[in-house]
Amino acid sequence: MDAATLLLTGKAKTTDSIYRRVDSVDAKGFPPAVKNLAKQSAGIAVLFETNSNIIRAKWTLPAEVYMHNMTPIAHSGLDLYCFQNGKWQFVSVAKPAKGTSQNQLIVQHMDGSMKQFMLYLPLYNGISQLQIGVQKDAVINKPAQPAINKTKRIVVYGSSVVQGASAGRPGMAYPAILQRRTGYDVINLGFSGSAKMEPELAAYIATVQADCYVLDCIPNPSPEQIRDRSHYFIKYIRGLRPNTPIVLVETVFRQNGLFDQQVGTTVRRQNEEIKKTYERLKQEGVKNIFYIESDKLIGNDHEATIDGIHLTDLGFMRIADAILPVIKKAMNEKK
Amino acid sequence: MDAATLLLTGKAKTTDSIYRRVDSVDAKGFPPAVKNLAKQSAGIAVLFETNSNIIRAKWTLPAEVYMHNMTPIAHSGLDLYCFQNGKWQFVSVAKPAKGTSQNQLIVQHMDGSMKQFMLYLPLYNGISQLQIGVQKDAVINKPAQPAINKTKRIVVYGSSVVQGASAGRPGMAYPAILQRRTGYDVINLGFSGSAKMEPELAAYIATVQADCYVLDCIPNPSPEQIRDRSHYFIKYIRGLRPNTPIVLVETVFRQNGLFDQQVGTTVRRQNEEIKKTYERLKQEGVKNIFYIESDKLIGNDHEATIDGIHLTDLGFMRIADAILPVIKKAMNEKK
Repeated sequence: MDAATLLLTGKAKTTDSIYRRVDSVDAKGFPPAVKNLAKQSAGIAVLFETNSNIIRAKWTLPAEVYMHNMTPIAHSGLDLYCFQNGKWQFVSVAKPAKGTSQNQLIVQHMDGSMKQFMLYLPLYNGISQLQIGVQKDAVINKPAQPAINKTKRIVVYGSSVVQGASAGRPGMAYPAILQRRTGYDVINLGFSGSAKMEPELAAYIATVQADCYVLDCIPNPSPEQIRDRSHYFIKYIRGLRPNTPIVLVETVFRQNGLFDQQVGTTVRRQNEEIKKTYERLKQEGVKNIFYIESDKLIGNDHEATIDGIHLTDLGFMRIADAILPVIKKAMNEKK
Repeated sequence: MDAATLLLTGKAKTTDSIYRRVDSVDAKGFPPAVKNLAKQSAGIAVLFETNSNIIRAKWTLPAEVYMHNMTPIAHSGLDLYCFQNGKWQFVSVAKPAKGTSQNQLIVQHMDGSMKQFMLYLPLYNGISQLQIGVQKDAVINKPAQPAINKTKRIVVYGSSVVQGASAGRPGMAYPAILQRRTGYDVINLGFSGSAKMEPELAAYIATVQADCYVLDCIPNPSPEQIRDRSHYFIKYIRGLRPNTPIVLVETVFRQNGLFDQQVGTTVRRQNEEIKKTYERLKQEGVKNIFYIESDKLIGNDHEATIDGIHLTDLGFMRIADAILPVIKKAMNEKK
């Protein structure tokens, strides 16, 4: 079954090529790095239901990727969940081999009851084509009652951490964890190394309807860029979306910044600058802005990253635990 | 500085080639797969102290590795910790590029105080050569007071999970977490896919002095192999080490076994067989045997693995939390 005929979640809008995050026309004015990352499939998942005993996937990647801090499963693989007893539960993954043409068994020997599945797409690669394989006599179709509720939506704009570095598999990026826990449609606008709050991005994000915006974009811009851009960026979104709650997240502390004194200083200055913008917005009477401090995000044992900045699944579970209550508060307390 | 002149931990015995886990003569009778994995450097770390502001590493890998469920940092990279305020704290990693010759900056801009460091070696590759780089005028030498206490030692024999799949970086394999938390020398005898309790392995392990043996080798043998081999295996070690506590660990439940009915049945049968052996040993009056059940190991949210069986850092933190109290109990309560 061509996955394009099933139900896609995690997409801000319809796009020219179905498995990319941002339409190429919308991305036209983006900085080149963001324009390129907009083609990737982070945060997109395919929903379907089937009574098949077996699920396979056949997918084509636009390119072979090497990342020292990501598993091939995370950057180029697929991650399958099943909705059972009111919860999304991990089933198994489609493991990419070297090369770009993939054809893998995900799970077999299941009982033949009808079940709803969600298949997450690669975090740091794209998808040119995707087919989901079931046995010959099985039913596969769009879920009659999708367990991801598209009437509520959270949009997360941010850095590589938002895009999903360094989750073990696509479903462990924290926007995906938020999506499963809330049942809302969560849009991953994480642009690795490139979430620098340019006006073009504000212009795009403000056109993406949301019930909550999470801005976790402090790791990438310099302290000076945060000083120069963040107030305009947030006010622009607020202008087009007067009542939608906005959650501002300080940058995760770079663990190596506890040893590298220059890195440590930069991170502190980044957070000081966004804090100043937050205080200024409050003074200006801007409502429905929520703020999460760096030391609340990933614990204090220094073990939650792979390389000092990018979160492992341990870090992603912790950051999801930290951010979700603030999102819920923001959505409930909206004035 | 050639790392071979510094202090190595995590080694069962001296070996012909310094960065391999088991001497080639000792490994001669091992099954071919185990013989090959014995060359890898999982669990080995280099201890040193330096006042350098910068630490680099230059290392040669015997081969380029591709693993769909491991990051290059974990299978072929290096992971640096520093001993501060009585604790080991993560500093940063050496990120492997493609190829086998590596030369990477790990950390810079540190203050110039004397510090003790530990550098973990690759989990699923070997090391042919390793040099640690410091600035010209800095001191680097073996620590005067090593923070890993070689007077106490834990030996962990097991599968890929013990070897470290799928930690994000070498220091997150659970034997490494146990080592940092206890300060004891912990020996990683994890042999991916190949921990099948052959008599040759019992013969070797019994010659490795330990204050506690952890046998986490149930994922690899079939239920029949566990039935046929486990009693002999444990009794053999007990024969040569009459008083050393032995901690038996059931196999982590394969998460996909909740959907794949055949996998689910196999895992249950593996655990039934090792439980029978445990009960038989108790009936025979064998002392100092401790047992950890599968459902105590990695939580119940089904999120702790990358592919159903191999633990991410989330899973490794949980399994370390589960196993460490039993090891402590075993070492304290020894009769």
